[in-house]
Amino acid sequence: MYEKCIALLKERGVEIEDIVDCVFYLQRGHIDDTDAASISETVKKVIDKREVQHAIITGICLDKMSEQRMLVDKDLEDILNRDESLYGIDEVLAYGICNLYGSIALTNFGYIDKAKYGIIKELNDHMDNHNACHTFLDDIVGAIAASAASRIAHNKKGPEDETL
Amino acid sequence: MYEKCIALLKERGVEIEDIVDCVFYLQRGHIDDTDAASISETVKKVIDKREVQHAIITGICLDKMSEQRMLVDKDLEDILNRDESLYGIDEVLAYGICNLYGSIALTNFGYIDKAKYGIIKELNDHMDNHNACHTFLDDIVGAIAASAASRIAHNKKGPEDETL
Amino acid sequence: MYEKCIALLKERGVEIEDIVDCVFYLQRGHIDDTDAASISETVKKVIDKREVQHAIITGICLDKMSEQRMLVDKDLEDILNRDESLYGIDEVLAYGICNLYGSIALTNFGYIDKAKYGIIKELNDHMDNHNACHTFLDDIVGAIAASAASRIAHNKKGPEDETL
Amino acid sequence: MYEKCIALLKERGVEIEDIVDCVFYLQRGHIDDTDAASISETVKKVIDKREVQHAIITGICLDKMSEQRMLVDKDLEDILNRDESLYGIDEVLAYGICNLYGSIALTNFGYIDKAKYGIIKELNDHMDNHNACHTFLDDIVGAIAASAASRIAHNKKGPEDETL
Repeated sequence: MYEKCIALLKERGVEIEDIVDCVFYLQRGHIDDTDAASISETVKKVIDKREVQHAIITGICLDKMSEQRMLVDKDLEDILNRDESLYGIDEVLAYGICNLYGSIALTNFGYIDKAKYGIIKELNDHMDNHNACHTFLDDIVGAIAASAASRIAHNKKGPEDETL
Repeated sequence: MYEKCIALLKERGVEIEDIVDCVFYLQRGHIDDTDAASISETVKKVIDKREVQHAIITGICLDKMSEQRMLVDKDLEDILNRDESLYGIDEVLAYGICNLYGSIALTNFGYIDKAKYGIIKELNDHMDNHNACHTFLDDIVGAIAASAASRIAHNKKGPEDETL
Repeated sequence: MYEKCIALLKERGVEIEDIVDCVFYLQRGHIDDTDAASISETVKKVIDKREVQHAIITGICLDKMSEQRMLVDKDLEDILNRDESLYGIDEVLAYGICNLYGSIALTNFGYIDKAKYGIIKELNDHMDNHNACHTFLDDIVGAIAASAASRIAHNKKGPEDETL
Repeated sequence: MYEKCIALLKERGVEIEDIVDCVFYLQRGHIDDTDAASISETVKKVIDKREVQHAIITGICLDKMSEQRMLVDKDLEDILNRDESLYGIDEVLAYGICNLYGSIALTNFGYIDKAKYGIIKELNDHMDNHNACHTFLDDIVGAIAASAASRIAHNKKGPEDETL
């Protein structure tokens, strides 16, 4: 399932490096002693969790089927293709990821989601210009980055919390 | 959107009365002074919230497309048709509903989800015996009942909290 | 309880207007058709909810007793007086508020908590310079503002969701 | 901090074995291949997480100071000593624990909290009969048991999710 998720993210335009870039953005000023390689490992560890993988495959499935006008519910399809601002199920899925990494992850997610940094902005632009649907994906990417940043913050304090 | 949600629930085998029955179950011993009519109103008020409606249309769309083998992701389709016990996105959507009604709603949901009372049991049995997929719906119904029960508990204490 | 909460906030340096200011910040670019008076009403409606009031009295009680070195647990007192960054119970309480107002509220909270705008920055500065403890209060204020902003966003779309 | 939390739980009447007993209750019918020793290890791993420890020390501090009538807020003290049913901050803290272990943990918590099994019932009885205050502790214990049960359910499926 892990390999499948990495492949799905890539297929939809998201590389691990793009998520690492978001983690750097969230941890700027705090990560003098970590490097891209270790952050990349942390991002992969987040994607290795079953609940995260389930969010990825569910969200991307909905994105793809909306984009291809294959949903049986045309109101939902319309909402997803417009990324309707009051539709919050994409954020609900994202919180399902962040919650696993504690309160810092949730705060990080809220910040990067509103700041629309890096790949998250690209995914949004892609929706406007190319009839793509990334309503779930941009939040999932933000949630993975926010969770990895939280894990790094916790682990820098000592090994006791290594499972976060 | 409200009428659509009521129709979708009915189409999938859930009447307002079935949800009212679950609320009675959750509030047994506490609702001498409420009756079916007022509980029915409360259930309808819960379904009248936009975030609840979004959860309903998203969850039922996924259920229906799994049942009809129309999902582009066959792994996800398989997980949903088996109601795989470690898949938790259905509960994540349910929490998105319950959270709007405070901590009592979440506790109520956990209880009725594990107790599998009434229509929730029927939906589960229907999956086993009729190739139906109600992976999301049973949790959504439980969440609506749990939320209505929480709203009733709060409002019995006085009007101050009438928006819960 | 509502009057008590308003008084407690005032006693700790937070006026309704300070929270209104945070709502304006969160909704900038979106609130041409609302004014300070209606936002103030929304903020008061948020504070009128029982679960919000319980968060306010619990958080401020912990802040005050830490500040006055009255907690029986001196490790906790130390953590709260330093606003230790990995202590997340203050955010957990804040999410308890935001959850009642849906996913937009949570995103708003994450943003304003990291941006440290207005009164939130003042409360933080006050901790550094005056031996005050506002570990819980800054998050509670952010959560109330984020919730009010979410309520405004939902209600601008129509009356159906008026209870958010 | 881990040793302190174990000591605090013991001081308030809760042994690791009491929590193991709750995990058995939640996992009955599913744990033929695990034994008390491995469940005990899982419970200890849950308590070894920083966010869980923070919930424990905060909740028990509030319980103890209510019991000893030391809170500066007498309304809050009264609410906590009565375990007022609409006060939900104790559940909010419990969800802060459960969220780290995914959606199964939340459902488990809702169930055991309403079923009031084992030590959770004892803590409640102790409040009624001995002027003790365990308003936070009973929920924290339920949350730790629910989280351990979730971790066991996930890990039985394979090593991929070992950090849950």
